Amino acid sequence: MSNGDIVTGEVIGTAILILFGAGVCAAVTLNHSKAKSAGWIVIAFGWGFGVMAGAYTAAPLSGAHLNPAVTVGVAVDTGDWDKVPLYLLGQLIGAVIGAVLCWALYYAQFAANADERNALPTLGIFSTVPEIRNPVANLLTEIIATVALVLPLLAFGRVDGIGIGPVDGGGSGDGTVIYGSGLSVLLVAFLVVGIGLSLGGPTGYAINPARDLGPRLAHALLPIPHKGTSDWGYAWIPVVGPLIGAVLAGLVFNAAF
Amino acid sequence: MSNGDIVTGEVIGTAILILFGAGVCAAVTLNHSKAKSAGWIVIAFGWGFGVMAGAYTAAPLSGAHLNPAVTVGVAVDTGDWDKVPLYLLGQLIGAVIGAVLCWALYYAQFAANADERNALPTLGIFSTVPEIRNPVANLLTEIIATVALVLPLLAFGRVDGIGIGPVDGGGSGDGTVIYGSGLSVLLVAFLVVGIGLSLGGPTGYAINPARDLGPRLAHALLPIPHKGTSDWGYAWIPVVGPLIGAVLAGLVFNAAF
Amino acid sequence: MSNGDIVTGEVIGTAILILFGAGVCAAVTLNHSKAKSAGWIVIAFGWGFGVMAGAYTAAPLSGAHLNPAVTVGVAVDTGDWDKVPLYLLGQLIGAVIGAVLCWALYYAQFAANADERNALPTLGIFSTVPEIRNPVANLLTEIIATVALVLPLLAFGRVDGIGIGPVDGGGSGDGTVIYGSGLSVLLVAFLVVGIGLSLGGPTGYAINPARDLGPRLAHALLPIPHKGTSDWGYAWIPVVGPLIGAVLAGLVFNAAF
Amino acid sequence: MSNGDIVTGEVIGTAILILFGAGVCAAVTLNHSKAKSAGWIVIAFGWGFGVMAGAYTAAPLSGAHLNPAVTVGVAVDTGDWDKVPLYLLGQLIGAVIGAVLCWALYYAQFAANADERNALPTLGIFSTVPEIRNPVANLLTEIIATVALVLPLLAFGRVDGIGIGPVDGGGSGDGTVIYGSGLSVLLVAFLVVGIGLSLGGPTGYAINPARDLGPRLAHALLPIPHKGTSDWGYAWIPVVGPLIGAVLAGLVFNAAF
Repeated sequence: MSNGDIVTGEVIGTAILILFGAGVCAAVTLNHSKAKSAGWIVIAFGWGFGVMAGAYTAAPLSGAHLNPAVTVGVAVDTGDWDKVPLYLLGQLIGAVIGAVLCWALYYAQFAANADERNALPTLGIFSTVPEIRNPVANLLTEIIATVALVLPLLAFGRVDGIGIGPVDGGGSGDGTVIYGSGLSVLLVAFLVVGIGLSLGGPTGYAINPARDLGPRLAHALLPIPHKGTSDWGYAWIPVVGPLIGAVLAGLVFNAAF
Repeated sequence: MSNGDIVTGEVIGTAILILFGAGVCAAVTLNHSKAKSAGWIVIAFGWGFGVMAGAYTAAPLSGAHLNPAVTVGVAVDTGDWDKVPLYLLGQLIGAVIGAVLCWALYYAQFAANADERNALPTLGIFSTVPEIRNPVANLLTEIIATVALVLPLLAFGRVDGIGIGPVDGGGSGDGTVIYGSGLSVLLVAFLVVGIGLSLGGPTGYAINPARDLGPRLAHALLPIPHKGTSDWGYAWIPVVGPLIGAVLAGLVFNAAF
Repeated sequence: MSNGDIVTGEVIGTAILILFGAGVCAAVTLNHSKAKSAGWIVIAFGWGFGVMAGAYTAAPLSGAHLNPAVTVGVAVDTGDWDKVPLYLLGQLIGAVIGAVLCWALYYAQFAANADERNALPTLGIFSTVPEIRNPVANLLTEIIATVALVLPLLAFGRVDGIGIGPVDGGGSGDGTVIYGSGLSVLLVAFLVVGIGLSLGGPTGYAINPARDLGPRLAHALLPIPHKGTSDWGYAWIPVVGPLIGAVLAGLVFNAAF
Repeated sequence: MSNGDIVTGEVIGTAILILFGAGVCAAVTLNHSKAKSAGWIVIAFGWGFGVMAGAYTAAPLSGAHLNPAVTVGVAVDTGDWDKVPLYLLGQLIGAVIGAVLCWALYYAQFAANADERNALPTLGIFSTVPEIRNPVANLLTEIIATVALVLPLLAFGRVDGIGIGPVDGGGSGDGTVIYGSGLSVLLVAFLVVGIGLSLGGPTGYAINPARDLGPRLAHALLPIPHKGTSDWGYAWIPVVGPLIGAVLAGLVFNAAF
């Protein structure tokens, strides 16, 4: 993979992921949306199929990490950190673009919300907001939930015929390839659905620093009237927690497999 | 593929797609339906599995585009526009037939609705109706949502072992073949579920000119008492928006891949 | 396949299908069930995964028709009617057994229902009950919904790599084999989910004479106190409608493919 | 497989399964959770995708039984009981660990619950609680539901190309291998979703002695204030019922196939 393909792939793939993910949050949150209050099952499947759409699109270009926690987990496993900055750069740019596209797609709904007497706060559409604000507990939640993402993802590569996970000694021989078959992306999509359903209750499951930081930047910069706070005091938790979880997952994987 | 097979395949496949899609809208909208008010998750999966059913049925005959936006996106990518009119013709005929079948299947429910003092408007069962009427915003919504359909679909073909997307240089060598394996249709079905869940809030996600125009024609022509307006003033948006989105997706794809 | 394997497979597979299908109806209908009033999405996926479970179990023995409409559709397509009676026999016996197992699994809930002042009618757990009783409309609904099941199922066999549908000239060369791969059963399961979501509103989608008649027999015979009517006046519609739909699907398939 | 790999795999895989499964019960039960009261569809898919995540992770190490009923069903089928104790040991340890991780992930929610005037009982997050307490009926429910899990799972191995079920005479030749392909784990995940939707109403579908006993131990030992009873009087039913069901499934399988 060329450096340009990596950045292009991560930008496009992460933009699609965030368009779907922020999109489903807008869909169930904003008034004048057909999916208003459609429930947690809609949120979880919306994010999961966003992973699927973004990952398939980016897979031929960059291997479709779309998540700094995945990039770091793979690097811990393979020991190869050379292209990590390229991945992170593409992921953050893509996440900002995806959030802007979500805002454009729901433009009329955001405008109507700003016109209401009691405008709903909009940050929850873009970034995660904990139900109970407790830094230690919130961090622990994000760490465990990210281990539950990255550990299965690394282990997937060891089942014959799945073709997922870092390819150390087979396939293309390229340590950055995560998705080697059509089925594998679907499995990761359902894994993300499962994390959302089961582990998303306390913090809204960032499990991906770019997924939270990029849209938070977009929320701070976009000209949305009455948009409410961007809550930068919480912003470090969905960055640091997933990165710790990714390192832990890589270490457990190397010890167990 | 013969010209006859293309038209036959697109007619049958699009009819099945619209039977399921309009069917699920009837199921949650009309009184005396077991799925009355069953929610957005039902709508999104109903349309998605309609894509799956129609695409599998049509795939061996026409490659199962079932959507002028897909046909145009493929043509922008391959540069081959010869059979585009055949596809569009089959898609529009099929969409009208599917809408008529939906009306027949829910005949007793439509009749009961017409008998009620406050008959529900029925257009939303057949075609898309925006939550906030704003031509620029509605058009933008349909454009972005269609890019989110066509760009992943084109990119799918570049992942080994998926066998989806226009085959420029491999597989059957036929630029009109979209689905090359059993898995690929399932992936596209879930992609459409994801678009519904995440991006369908503002306009009801036409993302397919035939899906909107064909049933609108059927709604205008069918003898449904108290059916309400067919709203032709809005009809151009779910045609023009998806076509613009398809062209954009084709151009982005050719630039990035 | 031996005659014994066909009957054994259809008995076991249809029993599993009905255990899951009647089970999910009991789950959402009866009081003192954790899934009480859990909604149409639960019903549709419960039936779909019942198809998956039954079909995988029966596939190596009988090819897993599990539905007289499938058996008849295949026979119309292949012209081979020799083993049709064996399939129908196994399907009816299996459907009765599955309904009895459902009653046993929900024994305490049925007992509690009978003890209540206003016991709920229980037929809807076992067999289909139309929302609006109109023989012509109900028959039409079942015919169209069954075409939407059998036509895609027959067409699936023509897509390379899916391995589903009657194998006329390839695979095992056995006209009774429906499922040739792991993926194919999943696709049929989702097809049935889609039919439920989209087309089940008016009549509860029998689309399978054994699915309705077997449990109705069980309902009539089982010692369930306060069970309510078995409604034999309606029983012919979910038998005749699906059979007409199966013949139509076979004829359309032979004409189009 | 080495003995160490079997224990390691079962510990990790069962811990992931229970983290997701107990997690989704916490998500819909506890206050201050984004999935509070999200319904039965969320429960069923949360457990199913927990099976998927745990099974993929454990498959290369232990074959991913994750359930004493599966281990016993396979042993009845193959006649090989040598490694059964290793599997059971790993499953029980893993289930306790998974329950502890769930408690840690929802730490702030458990704390908030204990602070409320009417703290909710927490056992239902960890272990199964019947809706109607009736030992005979509850046992029968667990027996039938476990047959509906283990019988299809054993039969899956006989369909070409699925690669699931005990491998008696093909594949790796190792009677403990359950999952031979990427698809097979997804099928088992959906089978578990289906069992939850259809058969979980009366008792909450343990269908796995370790899934119930391990978290019950954790519930008894963890320092959760106001946690309520651990209900040891019921604890034998979700152990004995699934084991009887597993033996029955193995016997039916050996007789029919």
